[in-house]
Amino acid sequence: MSADRTQAKERLYLFDTTLRDGAQTTGVDFSIEDKRRIAAMIDDLGLDYVEGGYPGANPLDTEFFRKKTLRHARFAAFGMTKRAGRSAANDPGIAGLMEADADTVVFVAKTWDFQVHVALGCTLDENLDGIADSIKYARNHGREAILDCEHFFDGYKANRDYALQCAQTAHEAGARWIVLCDTNGGTLPEEIEAIVRDVTQRIPGSHLGIHTHNDTENAVANTFAAVRAGVRHIQGTLNGLGERCGNANLCSIVPTLLLKSEYADRFEVGVSLEKLKGLTKLSHTLDELINRAPDRHAPYVGASAFATKAGIHASAVLKDPRTYEHVLPETVGNVRKVLVSDQAGKSNVLSELERLGVDVSRDDPRVLRVLDEVKEKEAQGYAYEGADASFELLARRVLGQAPDYFQVERFSVNVERRHNAAGELVTVSEAIVKVHVGGETLISAAEGNGPVNALDLALRKDLGKYQRYIEDLELIDYRVRVFQGGTDAVTRVLIEFGDSTGARWSTVGVSANIIDASFQALLDSINYKLMKADA
Amino acid sequence: MSADRTQAKERLYLFDTTLRDGAQTTGVDFSIEDKRRIAAMIDDLGLDYVEGGYPGANPLDTEFFRKKTLRHARFAAFGMTKRAGRSAANDPGIAGLMEADADTVVFVAKTWDFQVHVALGCTLDENLDGIADSIKYARNHGREAILDCEHFFDGYKANRDYALQCAQTAHEAGARWIVLCDTNGGTLPEEIEAIVRDVTQRIPGSHLGIHTHNDTENAVANTFAAVRAGVRHIQGTLNGLGERCGNANLCSIVPTLLLKSEYADRFEVGVSLEKLKGLTKLSHTLDELINRAPDRHAPYVGASAFATKAGIHASAVLKDPRTYEHVLPETVGNVRKVLVSDQAGKSNVLSELERLGVDVSRDDPRVLRVLDEVKEKEAQGYAYEGADASFELLARRVLGQAPDYFQVERFSVNVERRHNAAGELVTVSEAIVKVHVGGETLISAAEGNGPVNALDLALRKDLGKYQRYIEDLELIDYRVRVFQGGTDAVTRVLIEFGDSTGARWSTVGVSANIIDASFQALLDSINYKLMKADA
Repeated sequence: MSADRTQAKERLYLFDTTLRDGAQTTGVDFSIEDKRRIAAMIDDLGLDYVEGGYPGANPLDTEFFRKKTLRHARFAAFGMTKRAGRSAANDPGIAGLMEADADTVVFVAKTWDFQVHVALGCTLDENLDGIADSIKYARNHGREAILDCEHFFDGYKANRDYALQCAQTAHEAGARWIVLCDTNGGTLPEEIEAIVRDVTQRIPGSHLGIHTHNDTENAVANTFAAVRAGVRHIQGTLNGLGERCGNANLCSIVPTLLLKSEYADRFEVGVSLEKLKGLTKLSHTLDELINRAPDRHAPYVGASAFATKAGIHASAVLKDPRTYEHVLPETVGNVRKVLVSDQAGKSNVLSELERLGVDVSRDDPRVLRVLDEVKEKEAQGYAYEGADASFELLARRVLGQAPDYFQVERFSVNVERRHNAAGELVTVSEAIVKVHVGGETLISAAEGNGPVNALDLALRKDLGKYQRYIEDLELIDYRVRVFQGGTDAVTRVLIEFGDSTGARWSTVGVSANIIDASFQALLDSINYKLMKADA
Repeated sequence: MSADRTQAKERLYLFDTTLRDGAQTTGVDFSIEDKRRIAAMIDDLGLDYVEGGYPGANPLDTEFFRKKTLRHARFAAFGMTKRAGRSAANDPGIAGLMEADADTVVFVAKTWDFQVHVALGCTLDENLDGIADSIKYARNHGREAILDCEHFFDGYKANRDYALQCAQTAHEAGARWIVLCDTNGGTLPEEIEAIVRDVTQRIPGSHLGIHTHNDTENAVANTFAAVRAGVRHIQGTLNGLGERCGNANLCSIVPTLLLKSEYADRFEVGVSLEKLKGLTKLSHTLDELINRAPDRHAPYVGASAFATKAGIHASAVLKDPRTYEHVLPETVGNVRKVLVSDQAGKSNVLSELERLGVDVSRDDPRVLRVLDEVKEKEAQGYAYEGADASFELLARRVLGQAPDYFQVERFSVNVERRHNAAGELVTVSEAIVKVHVGGETLISAAEGNGPVNALDLALRKDLGKYQRYIEDLELIDYRVRVFQGGTDAVTRVLIEFGDSTGARWSTVGVSANIIDASFQALLDSINYKLMKADA
């Protein structure tokens, strides 16, 4: 039976709108370079469509659509159907769309009668004409056409006939896909399923798509409900970017389609199991591009998605991963993690040490000393979950495997804002660091564009015989969190460094003083690099 | 008909496990004070059960269960069923549970045959005995008993009869609720629904509960699927806290139950529409307690859940909120927000000004100057979405409504780490600020526990005639984000201040220099306060 089903697998088409609807996310503004990089990642993953934006309406998108660069995916341009009172050929919006180097044109049309009146101010028939003419025009110009039925589900509930008429008009005009949009995100899965089933009485599911939003936390479930009811085209965004609560999250949908037999046995998609292994990295790269901290708890791709904290769970998951893992983390390029945290038991620490390649026997009494020290540090505000390098240093120090490369006798940092000789207001940051390296005492000063930068430059300016090991260090990320711990605030700094080999590592520092906390994290970063370089 | 349905409404019971399963969240460690505050919030919201932890197994939880302080909700203690080979009366774990001042005891038992063998190492019958004896023992001691069927869905798929036998054993022993747990979070809604329907053939839904995890982003949908199939008890956590990808998010489930007719017409819950208006605040307070940045995109309660960014959407939502809102934001205590951002059009700016109470006519040409200045600042890295006070100051300055209270001539900050006279390593932070207030020149110096604190104290030490307005200011939050904008890094600082009236406001500063950026945000905070105080 399973062989039969394989032969009968139906194709599901995946449509990415990260660069169009995802650009509506609060705080996100893609540059053209961002758009190019993200489009290439989506193309490489194997999605079928990349919707790039609104060419003609927006200069950046017009530029982006000047030349298609995708290798596999169809490049889709988004715009409105023609306005009432003019032909598609005379509509400047449609002219802009047609100038784009796109395979596919996605027209958005209102399908809720109330919206047609309020927002468009035209008649219901004029709106239907707009749909038909726009789609025919695009097809006559050699483009595949898609209709996004805005507010379809609300429209259907208000005026079923009209909503269906809009969809049918597009189908009859030759649209490849008629996409049912839950624009406000308020529809629940059972309603989606029932309404889609009704639509399939008029339009075959092989021409229907679904576009959902996460306003009730059901965007993913709504997408699957529509697939069960017959649609064969899914719209979504990477990391669930999108206005308000976001769009349906393709980083959750794609693994479910490939890894869960309910879908994997019935459907075929353009993403291979091999490409799926790049999903975690892709998700994090996108967050990096848009300067957003990745969601640790994101399904499949989050740093904590395969992390176990409770002591009893930790020992069980090490015995047999099936006890707490619904899929294997490596299928999506993620990793199993047994957390070192305040709740950590000995087995968590052991498994982290093993993951980091630290050699120690299970019975070594020093493992408990590592655990004690972690607990003590975490009580002060340290967090090792995001600072592997600091954890490894701490453990190796306790285990006697980390040399003391150098000692810092003192540092001083000064930031001054004043008028310079030319009368301009300037801010100057300087740092002095005095270190002992072997028998030498070295004192270095540096100016930086801020106090941490000045301190970093001064510290790395001259480490004597170790200098050659740290020449290629680069600060990649610097994050600060202030805790109101009782009467005093405590500052936690997380620093990520990288080197020319592409290695990256993160360290943590905690103090009431941000400069102190930063300095601790900087020191850990340098010591970690020296340790890894066997300096 | 709707009156009939109201009379026939069934009661749904809501069980909060934020303090037990939610405590497994990466990075979360509740203090006993946190637990008390969170329990009181859940109680006040109107949930039926507060699961507080594992008394007996954990000293903090033992202490927490010493005295029940809830006013309405049942206080539930969690623990394991008795071990094989001893009676419940002789099991130290159960003894610890019974010492707790709890109304309800929740026993967790394995219901997956494979787990019984691997993790417990006992026979399937011994496990059934453990379930029956533990529940009877708790009931005989005057407690309501609940069974959490761990791995129920995986267990059902592996050995349907045994999973059902576990559930039935608990039911026959008198458990009030038998809770079906999707422990690994890998089950999909359609499967949940089908399996629950099967279980209801043996145990009435009025005795069944559901406990889901978000590993496929379906925790909320799975919960509702189980309700549709018959369960009448829902377990979840506030903000979806929980191990890995989290538990079912009660902050999404509760509003759907109350606001969506599919559920509101059929079910009654302990949360009133009035209490629901406190949900957004409750959600953010919890994040504050655990030092987590609230998820802006969270359904219902996120800062962006009712935020509109696109220019065309912004004008539509202002015409009629139904166009982009599935429920009214005030029903959950949230607010509509039309974003000021790089994509902002004039109507967004106007609507923000209106929300902030800034008086300006739609046709005032200075509105476009505000928009231009916002765009220019955002290009430099400013973000006004999280800094209302800085936005209002900017707008009022352009509109000529913000006085210049004082000028800063210079400041200087020094941080030094060195050995003091006693030979201890200490870090000292000092700042000097020179300001002109009216005709006066004032110079103040201060020591702080860090450079920003020193600067803040020096700046607020003496503002002459304005000093009395800023005596009660308090720094509440301080956040830093570093952007790699081309070759140079840019630092963005967001500062939240509050005063003794309970008012809170947020400001932003951007610079390559963290001290400079902090200083800008501090200045905005003080100017904002002076403006609001009509100083």
